[in-house]
Amino acid sequence: MAGNSFGKLFRITTFGESHGEAIGVIIDGCPSQLPVDLEYIQSELDKRKPGQSKITTQRKESDSVKILSGVFEGKTTGTPIAMLIPNEDQRSKDYSHNTNVFRPSHADYTYQTKYGIRDHRGGGRSSARETAARVAAGALAKLLLKSQGIEIAAHVSSVGKIDAPNVEINNVQDFIDQREQNIVRCADPATAEEMIEFIDSIRKQGDTVGGKISCYVKNCPVGLGEPVFDKLHAELGKAMLSINAVHGFEFGSGFAGSEMRGSEHNDIFINQKGDIKTITNFSGGIQGGISNGMPIEFRVAFKPVATIMHNQATIDSEGNAAEISGKGRHDPCVVPRAVPIVEAMAALVLVDHWLRNRNSILA
Amino acid sequence: MAGNSFGKLFRITTFGESHGEAIGVIIDGCPSQLPVDLEYIQSELDKRKPGQSKITTQRKESDSVKILSGVFEGKTTGTPIAMLIPNEDQRSKDYSHNTNVFRPSHADYTYQTKYGIRDHRGGGRSSARETAARVAAGALAKLLLKSQGIEIAAHVSSVGKIDAPNVEINNVQDFIDQREQNIVRCADPATAEEMIEFIDSIRKQGDTVGGKISCYVKNCPVGLGEPVFDKLHAELGKAMLSINAVHGFEFGSGFAGSEMRGSEHNDIFINQKGDIKTITNFSGGIQGGISNGMPIEFRVAFKPVATIMHNQATIDSEGNAAEISGKGRHDPCVVPRAVPIVEAMAALVLVDHWLRNRNSILA
Amino acid sequence: MAGNSFGKLFRITTFGESHGEAIGVIIDGCPSQLPVDLEYIQSELDKRKPGQSKITTQRKESDSVKILSGVFEGKTTGTPIAMLIPNEDQRSKDYSHNTNVFRPSHADYTYQTKYGIRDHRGGGRSSARETAARVAAGALAKLLLKSQGIEIAAHVSSVGKIDAPNVEINNVQDFIDQREQNIVRCADPATAEEMIEFIDSIRKQGDTVGGKISCYVKNCPVGLGEPVFDKLHAELGKAMLSINAVHGFEFGSGFAGSEMRGSEHNDIFINQKGDIKTITNFSGGIQGGISNGMPIEFRVAFKPVATIMHNQATIDSEGNAAEISGKGRHDPCVVPRAVPIVEAMAALVLVDHWLRNRNSILA
Amino acid sequence: MAGNSFGKLFRITTFGESHGEAIGVIIDGCPSQLPVDLEYIQSELDKRKPGQSKITTQRKESDSVKILSGVFEGKTTGTPIAMLIPNEDQRSKDYSHNTNVFRPSHADYTYQTKYGIRDHRGGGRSSARETAARVAAGALAKLLLKSQGIEIAAHVSSVGKIDAPNVEINNVQDFIDQREQNIVRCADPATAEEMIEFIDSIRKQGDTVGGKISCYVKNCPVGLGEPVFDKLHAELGKAMLSINAVHGFEFGSGFAGSEMRGSEHNDIFINQKGDIKTITNFSGGIQGGISNGMPIEFRVAFKPVATIMHNQATIDSEGNAAEISGKGRHDPCVVPRAVPIVEAMAALVLVDHWLRNRNSILA
Repeated sequence: MAGNSFGKLFRITTFGESHGEAIGVIIDGCPSQLPVDLEYIQSELDKRKPGQSKITTQRKESDSVKILSGVFEGKTTGTPIAMLIPNEDQRSKDYSHNTNVFRPSHADYTYQTKYGIRDHRGGGRSSARETAARVAAGALAKLLLKSQGIEIAAHVSSVGKIDAPNVEINNVQDFIDQREQNIVRCADPATAEEMIEFIDSIRKQGDTVGGKISCYVKNCPVGLGEPVFDKLHAELGKAMLSINAVHGFEFGSGFAGSEMRGSEHNDIFINQKGDIKTITNFSGGIQGGISNGMPIEFRVAFKPVATIMHNQATIDSEGNAAEISGKGRHDPCVVPRAVPIVEAMAALVLVDHWLRNRNSILA
Repeated sequence: MAGNSFGKLFRITTFGESHGEAIGVIIDGCPSQLPVDLEYIQSELDKRKPGQSKITTQRKESDSVKILSGVFEGKTTGTPIAMLIPNEDQRSKDYSHNTNVFRPSHADYTYQTKYGIRDHRGGGRSSARETAARVAAGALAKLLLKSQGIEIAAHVSSVGKIDAPNVEINNVQDFIDQREQNIVRCADPATAEEMIEFIDSIRKQGDTVGGKISCYVKNCPVGLGEPVFDKLHAELGKAMLSINAVHGFEFGSGFAGSEMRGSEHNDIFINQKGDIKTITNFSGGIQGGISNGMPIEFRVAFKPVATIMHNQATIDSEGNAAEISGKGRHDPCVVPRAVPIVEAMAALVLVDHWLRNRNSILA
Repeated sequence: MAGNSFGKLFRITTFGESHGEAIGVIIDGCPSQLPVDLEYIQSELDKRKPGQSKITTQRKESDSVKILSGVFEGKTTGTPIAMLIPNEDQRSKDYSHNTNVFRPSHADYTYQTKYGIRDHRGGGRSSARETAARVAAGALAKLLLKSQGIEIAAHVSSVGKIDAPNVEINNVQDFIDQREQNIVRCADPATAEEMIEFIDSIRKQGDTVGGKISCYVKNCPVGLGEPVFDKLHAELGKAMLSINAVHGFEFGSGFAGSEMRGSEHNDIFINQKGDIKTITNFSGGIQGGISNGMPIEFRVAFKPVATIMHNQATIDSEGNAAEISGKGRHDPCVVPRAVPIVEAMAALVLVDHWLRNRNSILA
Repeated sequence: MAGNSFGKLFRITTFGESHGEAIGVIIDGCPSQLPVDLEYIQSELDKRKPGQSKITTQRKESDSVKILSGVFEGKTTGTPIAMLIPNEDQRSKDYSHNTNVFRPSHADYTYQTKYGIRDHRGGGRSSARETAARVAAGALAKLLLKSQGIEIAAHVSSVGKIDAPNVEINNVQDFIDQREQNIVRCADPATAEEMIEFIDSIRKQGDTVGGKISCYVKNCPVGLGEPVFDKLHAELGKAMLSINAVHGFEFGSGFAGSEMRGSEHNDIFINQKGDIKTITNFSGGIQGGISNGMPIEFRVAFKPVATIMHNQATIDSEGNAAEISGKGRHDPCVVPRAVPIVEAMAALVLVDHWLRNRNSILA
């Protein structure tokens, strides 16, 4: 009830603070007999880990994941899978100057007021470090989805006001390969270059900037999503909004769709040699909350990182005016490292609904 | 697990199809001793009901709600509260022409494929009629919140490309009164007039148009929302995205915030005679997923209603090409009637988290 | 969270007080395409209804059930199934003498203290009338189980100190038919006669007596039940203990098994022409919390009904000494009417775990 | 959904196999500011650990618990508490002879059939080793309950046919101290001696024997337990039945109560200088599923341990007849080590309902 679990049938529970001993995740409900490719799981974590390029934080953590249970002779056994990621580079003293002041647009004030106590080292539980546990669990979810042909791919589609052109995805792996060729994780090489340059200049100014991630799901079967509250896009929305720094979610036509007319917006069904398709996809692959077999498409907006290298006015825990100086090692723009997180959360939603949908029909 | 329940401590379960005998809702977890103002609950339903003005569907339903249990001598008793709303104007034959064809951008195809059977009369379970049950439950949630001083108000902030100017809300009741003075439910009278005219012209063309609703929560205490998956805005997002026709959700700075820099976006804390405030409110009243005492602000994007009065190409259940003709009685724009639904879902999220937060601290 | 729901995938939520307008149940998660035999559901309710024989309460209720949603053209559609049972014979004035006093061994005192308010008419929510809703939902669960060959049968195995001999069940329907030939619902005719006579004498004394019900599940497939907390027998235990007046639950060897040695108690596996069986069945069909294909067997102990026709000392809501007189119409022994309730709760557990087990293996 | 979580507001999720790297538990929902006495938690684990006396298994594990998260400067912070217990004495080869055969009355056959794969080393997930994680979590639950004055005490009341006399508990700590003075954990010294002798003789015969544990809760406030499915005794019953080897649960008058008459069984209320009490306590401290302020009393029946030192007939995974020889290190009687497990599960139920009850009344 305290909010650290996600999913109904494929259910994860994460734990850990940024400067505690370890973070981790328990997955309960993964069916048995899924081959577990630990190297793949680690490679997903590597995409999220700090210190990977000049445009991410220079903090270093190897983020090595270890499986403690639930896997036997390389396969899942149906019992809970515990994954542990030890914390390594815990320079807690970097944060000692923040013990008593509330960092602007961080969770310090709300946690302190809600609980009357907080682990102030590096954000504690509110740190985005927690998302490493999601990436590990999401990687397992992706392996299950892949075994069913379902594929997920995201990339950075905007940094600040720099937008990438719309990308047509034919082959998911090609798209991911292309994206991984640059450090900002945008599948359009020209835009990527522009984004990198911009983030680097922002970094040099000690400032930060927001951005957007677009995510696609291919080969999703018809039928995932449950009426009426657990609509597929509602669950995707919650999943994305639960990621640190996310301020918006839209799928299909999204916000722009609210300006359209029904006669333009309706997706007309056609039968393409036995495959039911729609000519347009303003529905974003989801109708009535249930996947319709078309590609699922959604976008996620991230605010700029709150930690900047400038001095800022604030108050302390007594309510007195105070100043906070910009120390520590942080990301000038969070979206390059958030790509695997978005994919992981999408995978967790899809695998949960894939399992739920197995019980829709009796026969 | 099948998705017809919402909330953890204040938990609602809705049931009913648009052309069945009745729809309704069970509320489990409402604390005892809340005075139940049935007139208020009915008045909220009246704001959602069809046939209320020239810019809504002309279908007529009185949507009279009846409480079957859980209330004794005018107060809640702590036991489940069942509310029933009989269906009245069930012109099922209006829909008989749709039995065998899939309406574009409706849920016909996905329900049929998911379940192999569907109640095709008027959308069945996928009909927005289900939201009447939410409005009834949400009205009770609002009564509980009001008893704690927490107030919610939404209005139509856009219809198509017509945007209302930002509204400063000083007194929630005044704002609602102002909004209720026009049939489009926009608190800015000039914009409202423009919107009504536009919707009316769209209606005459047999077309539909989308829009946006902005929602505000005033006097929310600090501390609502749970780390890390059940962040307050993540739950609000899911709640809104679960409403029929919603394609997007943003809070605080939202999508625009992704274009900003950290140095502009950070909300600086100040102590205003003992009240902790922030100078700006790009956080939308929520930091780290937890309410910070500032007004909560979010926006919801609705796609245009899929039912239009034009003939459209589609396929039938055998996959053959077919045509669907535009009959029935539908809304040219859904947002005026969606205002109480948005408020209801917001109330359900807030009351649930208000209850959850009562257990945050031991002492 | 308030405890009025049961089950995870096949989830029921009941509502209603004994002297309110109606009681009912919502079933969420029933797969689509199950044919609904309403006559069968009603016949199960008839076995529970009051006034059916001289050894039950003389209160009269027809307990007619009505389905409001979730069924279309005789089949389930996958959407929530609402069932309503109006209350008829609400002689609330029978209870007016109890408004202010706490009936001994009833729930008056605990409800009043927990909630500060209670519907005192006939026990309100704590009345066993609520179990009619369970029987209705359970009847649907039985229909689903029957479609899979799984059958459930219970009977009264003890009344006071009168015990029926162990019954070998070959054909479940024969067993039920036999049981239904007497008003006490014991499958052994000779014992039944003795029990009826005893209950009748108890009734004439204005007293009540307890009893036991034994329940059997035949043709349950191997694999139902989840490690480690949701063991099949743990869920059956909770289900039974949630029935009014139940004070004990045991399965297989039960309490007597605690006196045995491992060398006697172990059930030896054998291969009977391809069927894996055990020679004995002290495990009661469940090993490690998971069904093993042998008949499931458990017993449920009911305390004597608390309402007796004698005057009793008690206290009133002010804590003053008071006397309560024995009025109203009540059962001298609850077990004959509890047989369908035990079966219903067993069916609800089994159908839930049958659905859950469908996701145990990936392939 | 896969059954490895327990509790709604104070929710634990356990993981780990007997011969994997570690077992552990995540607690989500513990309120902040509870002082954490790690020594006490370890001392509870020591009461469960193997190798503690001549009448337990000679396997040795230190069962040292480590807290990875959720505690800061000695107090809970409201975030998830992860506890890890490494596995040490994993003589997996002791079990290599069992890889391919199904041990009688163990979970080998059911797990293998349910999942198609199993970690056969020492029972894997079905091993009672998992209960160490429950004891660790339960110890924290006890600390919270103690801070509210609620105390729990259990002891061994039967071994085989040897029954301890009923014990009046005045002071819970005295009772526990008395119980801890003998290795069988029976609070009656004379009976304890008899039990120890009997278990020792059983052990020498290579056999095992069952037993019973009685548990008491003192100072439980009125109001814990939720109508209608989550009755306090129903949740206690499920909790106890989920412990390995448990075959029966009864509270208050229990099975014997089913032989009584209402006129004997009713607990008459009295006002003892402002305290509402009942003269007798056949209700076992729970009425209508809700605690009534009297001591809570229940009994749990354990079957004899299935692993015996005799050769036994069985079948192998191909269905062929096989023989299993009695090797390994196991307990002749499980009840002495199960006392802290029973208390832990009781504590987990009570703390969950204590939190749930905080929301019963609005004011």
